Amino acid sequence: MRKFTEEQHMFRDAYRRFLADDVAPRMDEFREAGIVDREIFKKAGDQGFLMIWPDEKYGGMGDDDFRYEQIIIEETTRAGCAEWYNTLHSRLVGPYFKNIGNEEQRERFLPKCVSGETILAVAMTEPGAGSDLSGMKTTATDNGDHWVLNGSKTYISNGINADVVIVAAKIAGVDDKHAMVLLIVERGMEGFERGQNLEKIGLHAQDTAELFFNNVKIPKENQLGTPGKGFIHLMEGLAEERLIAMVGYAASARRAFDVTREFVMERDVFGKKLSDMQNTQFKMAEMDSKIDMLQVYVDHCVEVHNQGGLNANIAAKGKMLGSEIEWEMADLGLQLHGGAGYMKEYEISRIFTDARMSRIYAGSSEIMRYIVGRDVFSQKYQSILE
Amino acid sequence: MRKFTEEQHMFRDAYRRFLADDVAPRMDEFREAGIVDREIFKKAGDQGFLMIWPDEKYGGMGDDDFRYEQIIIEETTRAGCAEWYNTLHSRLVGPYFKNIGNEEQRERFLPKCVSGETILAVAMTEPGAGSDLSGMKTTATDNGDHWVLNGSKTYISNGINADVVIVAAKIAGVDDKHAMVLLIVERGMEGFERGQNLEKIGLHAQDTAELFFNNVKIPKENQLGTPGKGFIHLMEGLAEERLIAMVGYAASARRAFDVTREFVMERDVFGKKLSDMQNTQFKMAEMDSKIDMLQVYVDHCVEVHNQGGLNANIAAKGKMLGSEIEWEMADLGLQLHGGAGYMKEYEISRIFTDARMSRIYAGSSEIMRYIVGRDVFSQKYQSILE
Amino acid sequence: MRKFTEEQHMFRDAYRRFLADDVAPRMDEFREAGIVDREIFKKAGDQGFLMIWPDEKYGGMGDDDFRYEQIIIEETTRAGCAEWYNTLHSRLVGPYFKNIGNEEQRERFLPKCVSGETILAVAMTEPGAGSDLSGMKTTATDNGDHWVLNGSKTYISNGINADVVIVAAKIAGVDDKHAMVLLIVERGMEGFERGQNLEKIGLHAQDTAELFFNNVKIPKENQLGTPGKGFIHLMEGLAEERLIAMVGYAASARRAFDVTREFVMERDVFGKKLSDMQNTQFKMAEMDSKIDMLQVYVDHCVEVHNQGGLNANIAAKGKMLGSEIEWEMADLGLQLHGGAGYMKEYEISRIFTDARMSRIYAGSSEIMRYIVGRDVFSQKYQSILE
Amino acid sequence: MRKFTEEQHMFRDAYRRFLADDVAPRMDEFREAGIVDREIFKKAGDQGFLMIWPDEKYGGMGDDDFRYEQIIIEETTRAGCAEWYNTLHSRLVGPYFKNIGNEEQRERFLPKCVSGETILAVAMTEPGAGSDLSGMKTTATDNGDHWVLNGSKTYISNGINADVVIVAAKIAGVDDKHAMVLLIVERGMEGFERGQNLEKIGLHAQDTAELFFNNVKIPKENQLGTPGKGFIHLMEGLAEERLIAMVGYAASARRAFDVTREFVMERDVFGKKLSDMQNTQFKMAEMDSKIDMLQVYVDHCVEVHNQGGLNANIAAKGKMLGSEIEWEMADLGLQLHGGAGYMKEYEISRIFTDARMSRIYAGSSEIMRYIVGRDVFSQKYQSILE
Ligand SMILES: Cc1cc2nc3c(=O)[nH]c(=O)nc-3n(C[C@H](O)[C@H](O)[C@H](O)COP(=O)(O)OP(=O)(O)OC[C@H]3O[C@@H](n4cnc5c(N)ncnc54)[C@H](O)[C@@H]3O)c2cc1C
Ligand SMILES: Cc1cc2nc3c(=O)[nH]c(=O)nc-3n(C[C@H](O)[C@H](O)[C@H](O)COP(=O)(O)OP(=O)(O)OC[C@H]3O[C@@H](n4cnc5c(N)ncnc54)[C@H](O)[C@@H]3O)c2cc1C
Ligand SMILES: Cc1cc2nc3c(=O)[nH]c(=O)nc-3n(C[C@H](O)[C@H](O)[C@H](O)COP(=O)(O)OP(=O)(O)OC[C@H]3O[C@@H](n4cnc5c(N)ncnc54)[C@H](O)[C@@H]3O)c2cc1C
Ligand SMILES: Cc1cc2nc3c(=O)[nH]c(=O)nc-3n(C[C@H](O)[C@H](O)[C@H](O)COP(=O)(O)OP(=O)(O)OC[C@H]3O[C@@H](n4cnc5c(N)ncnc54)[C@H](O)[C@@H]3O)c2cc1C
Repeated sequence: MRKFTEEQHMFRDAYRRFLADDVAPRMDEFREAGIVDREIFKKAGDQGFLMIWPDEKYGGMGDDDFRYEQIIIEETTRAGCAEWYNTLHSRLVGPYFKNIGNEEQRERFLPKCVSGETILAVAMTEPGAGSDLSGMKTTATDNGDHWVLNGSKTYISNGINADVVIVAAKIAGVDDKHAMVLLIVERGMEGFERGQNLEKIGLHAQDTAELFFNNVKIPKENQLGTPGKGFIHLMEGLAEERLIAMVGYAASARRAFDVTREFVMERDVFGKKLSDMQNTQFKMAEMDSKIDMLQVYVDHCVEVHNQGGLNANIAAKGKMLGSEIEWEMADLGLQLHGGAGYMKEYEISRIFTDARMSRIYAGSSEIMRYIVGRDVFSQKYQSILE
Repeated sequence: MRKFTEEQHMFRDAYRRFLADDVAPRMDEFREAGIVDREIFKKAGDQGFLMIWPDEKYGGMGDDDFRYEQIIIEETTRAGCAEWYNTLHSRLVGPYFKNIGNEEQRERFLPKCVSGETILAVAMTEPGAGSDLSGMKTTATDNGDHWVLNGSKTYISNGINADVVIVAAKIAGVDDKHAMVLLIVERGMEGFERGQNLEKIGLHAQDTAELFFNNVKIPKENQLGTPGKGFIHLMEGLAEERLIAMVGYAASARRAFDVTREFVMERDVFGKKLSDMQNTQFKMAEMDSKIDMLQVYVDHCVEVHNQGGLNANIAAKGKMLGSEIEWEMADLGLQLHGGAGYMKEYEISRIFTDARMSRIYAGSSEIMRYIVGRDVFSQKYQSILE
Repeated sequence: MRKFTEEQHMFRDAYRRFLADDVAPRMDEFREAGIVDREIFKKAGDQGFLMIWPDEKYGGMGDDDFRYEQIIIEETTRAGCAEWYNTLHSRLVGPYFKNIGNEEQRERFLPKCVSGETILAVAMTEPGAGSDLSGMKTTATDNGDHWVLNGSKTYISNGINADVVIVAAKIAGVDDKHAMVLLIVERGMEGFERGQNLEKIGLHAQDTAELFFNNVKIPKENQLGTPGKGFIHLMEGLAEERLIAMVGYAASARRAFDVTREFVMERDVFGKKLSDMQNTQFKMAEMDSKIDMLQVYVDHCVEVHNQGGLNANIAAKGKMLGSEIEWEMADLGLQLHGGAGYMKEYEISRIFTDARMSRIYAGSSEIMRYIVGRDVFSQKYQSILE
Repeated sequence: MRKFTEEQHMFRDAYRRFLADDVAPRMDEFREAGIVDREIFKKAGDQGFLMIWPDEKYGGMGDDDFRYEQIIIEETTRAGCAEWYNTLHSRLVGPYFKNIGNEEQRERFLPKCVSGETILAVAMTEPGAGSDLSGMKTTATDNGDHWVLNGSKTYISNGINADVVIVAAKIAGVDDKHAMVLLIVERGMEGFERGQNLEKIGLHAQDTAELFFNNVKIPKENQLGTPGKGFIHLMEGLAEERLIAMVGYAASARRAFDVTREFVMERDVFGKKLSDMQNTQFKMAEMDSKIDMLQVYVDHCVEVHNQGGLNANIAAKGKMLGSEIEWEMADLGLQLHGGAGYMKEYEISRIFTDARMSRIYAGSSEIMRYIVGRDVFSQKYQSILE
């Protein structure tokens, strides 16, 4: 029923094999270390799995059909490797170069991003400002041929691994809390330090860190997009960012469903299979239904996005509901595992702790409700179907 | 974004006008009377709104694209006329003639069904058997050239208005609780009586009644489909029946959303509009998202059905979630109306009491969970997407 | 386990008999009429069931132990007579005379209230102002020895039956939206009109009406409490008002549980009792637990109230959760009845439609959250247990 | 409002100081190690905090008022030390000696349990049998003056620290799946091995392990209670076990509420405090109400238990709802912390991961529903209030 091309099916198979061979066997090691080995990025890059969309001249396939990324996300999740969040690199940060970078920047950065030699991150959040970016305190001072960056960022994914970080900062001296500039900060720049790899309740193989900027001199060549429009640049990526999110949540929900289904069909309780209990049946039936409904919505959004029509509201709806359905399934799955669900040894326990993040980042559920609610009561409101 | 043909758009407009002119103004009168005037069926028939699918030779359009019925359901709901449940006649009962009737029967019954002179009903439920039809007690005894029908049915929609009732009965003397026959019972047959129009908490314009069969002689010409296969014949219609249901629930949920949206944007509380309150915004945002997600699923099912691929499980998922989302919206809508929501004068109060039925008939939510759950744990399980 | 005195047990029995003999058999008639026969109030008064608390000199028992009213509420509900909302008369409106009335007013009104000859109502809500009473438009103009009352009220319980209505009005000419006066409006006063008995989705035996005041002359003897403090007077009754509410919701939830329990233990589905299904068991177990927890809280509040310690916040919590648990049970109960649950013939259908009001009046669930939330984030916040 | 004696208030203060001085500062170290230092048990024992109930001759206070344990649980939780689950030792396992041990056993074991030199555990669960203990495979063979124990147990709390483990085993050769014997297994017995300290998603300072029994010879002096009645002995402790559970969940829910309340009153979002947002207010108001209601129920159960009247059903209701309210609060608390909630640095993240266990152990929520449901539909059903 799903609509992928023949080429995409082959791509899926190849990527699946890559994960099985090179990534899945090492995930426990990465979890222990709190970080994925850079080597994995390079291997993925070598085989053409990192950035699909860049033009061939930068080393990509030049195809920005979102279904490629959808396949990447689905398979990474299905293989239990979702903590290796390569889509952040490939389709969440990377596209900034395409959308607002200039040709020189694209040439300078994209090839190594495609090959996996350069790892990307984006840094917006600060200790005092997350949902509300206008509260950020990091500043960039215009010094003619360079900017001077001061401040700090936190909870930055790939914070340890990243070679290149796109940093949002307020333009010093401008009296407008939305006047920001995006700057490309590179590993090794003077005054750019990283904090500890933060300890989290899940996503253990993902490195998340604080970043500190102490009078970092950023040449104007590393200014991304239009100064003053940094906030708007961030907004422009929202629809796709949320689409990435919902694709992942649907995949994760389905994975949680699958491992749980298998478990309850094996587990004996009171002389029956746990799957023979009506409670198990009714709850799993409900989740199967919700996950299917979510997936149909997600696929619809992918299609609309490929046609250029996905707006940030439609995407917010899927991001919000997706993270909530994923959560419901993760929680149910753990519950149906009984004590085993609480043990790290079981995949469901990881799906559960990882899933807890989905309702918070990429715009928390409250922010999604805020955004959709604002739209609902605006004059120009129209539902997805009109 | 939705996919209707130009012709269908015109059909929608025409039907909308018909409702506005001929039906909506009389709904209160019908509610008072507990029944829709037969005249309305005839008017609808005259204008080609009753049965679209029958061949032109029977008076129909000969087009069984489900989107026509979808338009009928959506518009009837939007106009606040959903208690006139003409789809029951047109696409829930009518198709039995097409699917399991013989040519003689089609010729005898369809033209007057299309014209609205004959009103249809289907009678399965009994006081002691609803979800579990195998528990029914009504029997049909084979007497050579006719059947003799004995027993009673209850909660039959169009129970008062119906001229022709398709009745399910167990074949007397056969030791198999699923061995049933479907019989066409006609107004005026001896021994066929109707009870009172039952008093319900909602759906006030819908006539719902008990039917009694006391040695009713049914000629073999009125035997529908294959004796012994009655139960299977009923099952064959399930996917479409559930599709009809979910289309209606989505429309009703959207209607509840719309009237509530309007209300809260007008209502003043504590010096603000009720729509300025974050609680109102968050809750309405959530419902807007859920209803959109439901609608995308519904439209997907319609498309799959038009291609012949809708199975009863996929449809059960939509029936179940649809009725629950409709309910959530109806309940929220009433709540946000405050005291007004409790007054019959306000449309939301009717949507609310009507919606309470959706989780029960056409297969209760428990039965839907049962069915989907059975599928989930079967060997041949596969999700909608595979 | 519950703590009632011997006397109270006897009172309970006597009142239960009264309901069984005189009220329950006539409820259907009252529902049909949309109003309870005044006769019932008189009979109750005759037997000492109307107002317990007034001093013996006014005809009462002079005992303001709240458990008497608790018994009244519990038994009225258990007998299926809750639509006869005599507590509104007895303990919601009546106490205004005690708390803010003067001796002359007590002597003039209380005896007939106790005997049931005079029926009481209180009128705060207006078409444009419910939750937020400061938005009311009804005004009282001070004319020396009388007030002149203008405006209208709506959704007034006992609106048709009431002989005496306590009306809240803004004091004309005072620039303070909380400056109100409470006035005693009596049947027959010139310019005092009543609207239709409003059509509701439930509570059919309760008369609810609009009241109109057109230059009604109210002598100063009918001024209740201190002019300007009307709003505060209303607030003073809130803790008890919410206690009344929660006692009723707990009783109604338990009643819904009981009738459902009985139904599912009788009903056959798929060759078993409906009570043999795990879904039925798990859901009913959950409700039994919630209702018990609610009841323990309610009884705790009654005890605290009898000791003079119940504050409006503690009561708001019980009012809110009580109405929600009642609702959850009513909805589940209807669902488990299947089609029968939708028929007026079954008690559960009435419990369901009646219960829908509980989350709205006496302070909607949103207002309860608002109030409790304000307390939670105040400096002086302390939980019930400290 | 709560009912503790003066002595108990002093006890609370003393224990609170002990935690602050000796335990809280070391919790991070214990979490890192995955186990609490045995030293802590000894220190607690020295100060009289371990076992309160044993007679003075064994070193206890000889007071089995449950409120002492309630204080222990509440304070341990409030201090963020709940992972040190000393109540398991003191009041969950210890009482087996009192209830079914003989005098010789009490004299042999209790004094060192009271002093903290001996740490206790109880082992019922096996890889293949948790909720349904009748499925256990561990066997005890009666060899005249000793039993021979074979099998394994899993998920055993204090599994590493325990010196004495009460092990449930089936009596070999008896054809009754409920015929069990309880045996006292001591550190150092030949054939008794422990597995790894299991990795869990939370409760990091709690050691949980597998235990293996390979022909362990257990002298008859270490047989606890009556052989064959082991299962019944386990059941006898259920009411108190569930009471312990619910006291802890209520305390943990309140703790989660408190830290969240503090956080949202400090956190700035969009130019306001997070506590100024209506969503925050409504949600926290709801939780405050639910936690209060839970606490009133818990205190009620403690009182009933002290009077000897707590049955296992009443306790099951509190265990079930308690764990669910705790969970709701933990999840909300994390959510309102935003990204911080996901960081181990914040207490809420620990409350969250720890709380996930509560719905599973000590009888999962499904088992509680099963038990209560069985009661609901039994002939002798009566609610808590009758
Ligand atoms: C593992 C992880 C990885 C991350 N990766 C990155 C990254 O790579 N780059 C990056 O820039 N950031 C990253 N983040 C940060 C993430 O985007 C933020 O945590 C998120 O945006 C929320 O911001 P906050 O934590 O400051 O919470 P806050 O904004 O302080 O929110 C706290 C709570 O308040 C609620 N709230 C906020 N506003 C409102 C409102 N108006 N009404 C009602 N409620 C409201 C929120 O929903 C939330 O529940 C990451 C975070 C984590 C934990
Ligand atoms: C307004 C209205 C119109 C109707 N119109 C028609 C009509 O036109 N023709 C017609 O034939 N029928 C009609 N019905 C009947 C309707 O289809 C039935 O009410 C419905 O199928 C449920 O059957 P029941 O009422 O016998 O409930 P039951 O089958 O007795 O069910 C009672 C409860 O048990 C639950 N339950 C049942 N089985 C299980 C299980 N295995 N596990 C757990 N729970 C279970 C159900 O979900 C329900 O909650 C109508 C009903 C109404 C109220
Ligand atoms: C059957 C019945 C009997 C009644 N009896 C009486 C009576 O005897 N005497 C009398 O005076 N009144 C009576 N009432 C009126 C009742 O008290 C009001 O309906 C109730 O207070 C709600 O007011 P409203 O209807 O104006 O709704 P509104 O106040 O307009 O509220 C509409 C919605 O907005 C929500 N809302 C309001 N403020 C906020 C906020 N700040 N934030 C978020 N949401 C908010 C409400 O919760 C509600 O959902 C009765 C009503 C009914 C239906
Ligand atoms: C951290 C931790 C500490 C523990 N400490 C101890 C300890 O000290 N001593 C000890 O003996 N045990 C201990 N346990 C084990 C704990 O008691 C069990 O995990 C629990 O009883 C559940 O058993 P199970 O894990 O075998 O799950 P199962 O019994 O296999 O249950 C799996 C799922 O099936 C559900 N289920 C079971 N029966 C039914 C039914 N009839 N109908 C519907 N659903 C059903 C359950 O609710 C659960 O969701 C501990 C566990 C953990 C994780």
